[in-house]
Amino acid sequence: MLILEYIEKLLNGDKRTCARLISIVENDEEEAKNIIKNIYKYTGKAHVIGITGPPGGGKSTLTDKLAKELRNRGKTVGIIAIDPTSPFTGGAILGDRIRMQDLATDPKVFIRSMGTRGHLGGLSKATQSAVKVLDAYGADYIIIETVGVGQSEIDIVKTADTVVMVLVPGLGDDIQAIKAGIMEIGDIFAINKSDLDGAARTAAEVKAVLDMGPMKDRKPPIVQVIASLNKGVDKLLDEILNHMEYLKSTGELRKRREENIRAEIIKLIETEIMRMVLKKSQANQILDNTVIEVADRKLDPFSACEDIMKLFSSNI
Amino acid sequence: MLILEYIEKLLNGDKRTCARLISIVENDEEEAKNIIKNIYKYTGKAHVIGITGPPGGGKSTLTDKLAKELRNRGKTVGIIAIDPTSPFTGGAILGDRIRMQDLATDPKVFIRSMGTRGHLGGLSKATQSAVKVLDAYGADYIIIETVGVGQSEIDIVKTADTVVMVLVPGLGDDIQAIKAGIMEIGDIFAINKSDLDGAARTAAEVKAVLDMGPMKDRKPPIVQVIASLNKGVDKLLDEILNHMEYLKSTGELRKRREENIRAEIIKLIETEIMRMVLKKSQANQILDNTVIEVADRKLDPFSACEDIMKLFSSNI
Repeated sequence: MLILEYIEKLLNGDKRTCARLISIVENDEEEAKNIIKNIYKYTGKAHVIGITGPPGGGKSTLTDKLAKELRNRGKTVGIIAIDPTSPFTGGAILGDRIRMQDLATDPKVFIRSMGTRGHLGGLSKATQSAVKVLDAYGADYIIIETVGVGQSEIDIVKTADTVVMVLVPGLGDDIQAIKAGIMEIGDIFAINKSDLDGAARTAAEVKAVLDMGPMKDRKPPIVQVIASLNKGVDKLLDEILNHMEYLKSTGELRKRREENIRAEIIKLIETEIMRMVLKKSQANQILDNTVIEVADRKLDPFSACEDIMKLFSSNI
Repeated sequence: MLILEYIEKLLNGDKRTCARLISIVENDEEEAKNIIKNIYKYTGKAHVIGITGPPGGGKSTLTDKLAKELRNRGKTVGIIAIDPTSPFTGGAILGDRIRMQDLATDPKVFIRSMGTRGHLGGLSKATQSAVKVLDAYGADYIIIETVGVGQSEIDIVKTADTVVMVLVPGLGDDIQAIKAGIMEIGDIFAINKSDLDGAARTAAEVKAVLDMGPMKDRKPPIVQVIASLNKGVDKLLDEILNHMEYLKSTGELRKRREENIRAEIIKLIETEIMRMVLKKSQANQILDNTVIEVADRKLDPFSACEDIMKLFSSNI
């Protein structure tokens, strides 16, 4: 592949090339490396927004409406929707979602669904690479939307500059608990479906939890929205832009991005070292034998790790 | 700490010692290693059951009722409930849950809630260690219950011998999507709250998705339950026991456990190597400088990784 030709097209805003490059960085680790190395210097300009929260919160609708509001203000938008994978095909079941079809035909909006399985280097890495492609492509804003609230989703959304936590009124105990678990990563709280009973109470509960926390320079704002009716979405976007102003004026933006870069490099090093260990001749054979010993309870996992380390630490 | 004394007490079934040792393996990586090394040979006897599924499915209630049914059949039970962490304290907010209080006073039942944050070595590692302590303690059955459906929860629940996926009728699109994403890890499907409208349809949908999949020797059974009324729980338990018979008779049990052990050892090696890299003098300084260069877009993350690898690969 004439990678530099592709990259030139990407930088010139060619949408099909953008799609093609994202597919490559998703699926081909070696080419991904090559592409990111070449486009990295053109990245860092986009404002990356993470949209997360428990299932059933209407995150997709909110993402659509936010993207439209950004388009109304003349901005270009990239959307990466982390969709659960189809059980047997390995693809993202929701595809480039039907409900986003009007957005998808807009040349200034790029939408990509990514499944949660089948990424050799991990979903988090694939997402980060896709964000870089969209950034180099020239998206002013990149929205990462994740279904679910597990640790890997949190890891992904934490790489955003601004994290919007979407909650809805009146969900059960489970949701209350999850809500608490993920409070700390929200820069802005959106109470969606605010026409439902209990919206004000949910907002008050969120406020109470935030007030209980350590004093911070900035209290995350709580915005009531009804995404399906496009109510409050403009206000939410204003808060997102305010947050970026805050990040820039306080030096927080640089700090956050450095932290994310650090985590990214450490992860790359870990993967690289493991690859080296397993590539060594006999490494897999030794590991196979060790697994059997551990399964037989002749050896414990920690001692197994120590034994293997001793074998390889002399000349990794 | 006189670790061998503790371990002797554990093997003699002392419940307080069990609690103490789980706290230690959760919080102290070095001691955890020491404890696991010493108890490992006494493990591998318990049948580990993972209970998972989207929020709001009544997993906790079902776990309680399953534990009670196991007690009725004269078995001892350990429960590890992975609870979301309180946002600011780092502890599990649901504590040793009130609704489980009648179980908690039973000397043959051990219940532990674990938060999703604050585990140095990762929640997955802490859970695996706790399972080993409960196994050595003599629990016949160990139930791991996870709220949420993220990748890390899936990783945890995959370490179980039998995975029960709990679904409920009539949840929205999001839930349907998540359901699809996690279908493949279910050994048994429990449709809880089966007195709600749409229970039969949900069961049919699950069956349809399973039928679409590749031919397997064993089709996961679908059991309708109403956990709150204790209906169908005995049947679910029968299916769980059948699954273990299947695992044993086909050699799958050994295969699964070997796969889990392999993943566990690889994870330990990765962590260990990273620790070695970062411990080297100047390693952190070099990483700090590299992060700044990458943040300035003078270097890309992949090249940064390669540079650091070159520096250290000569004599890790």
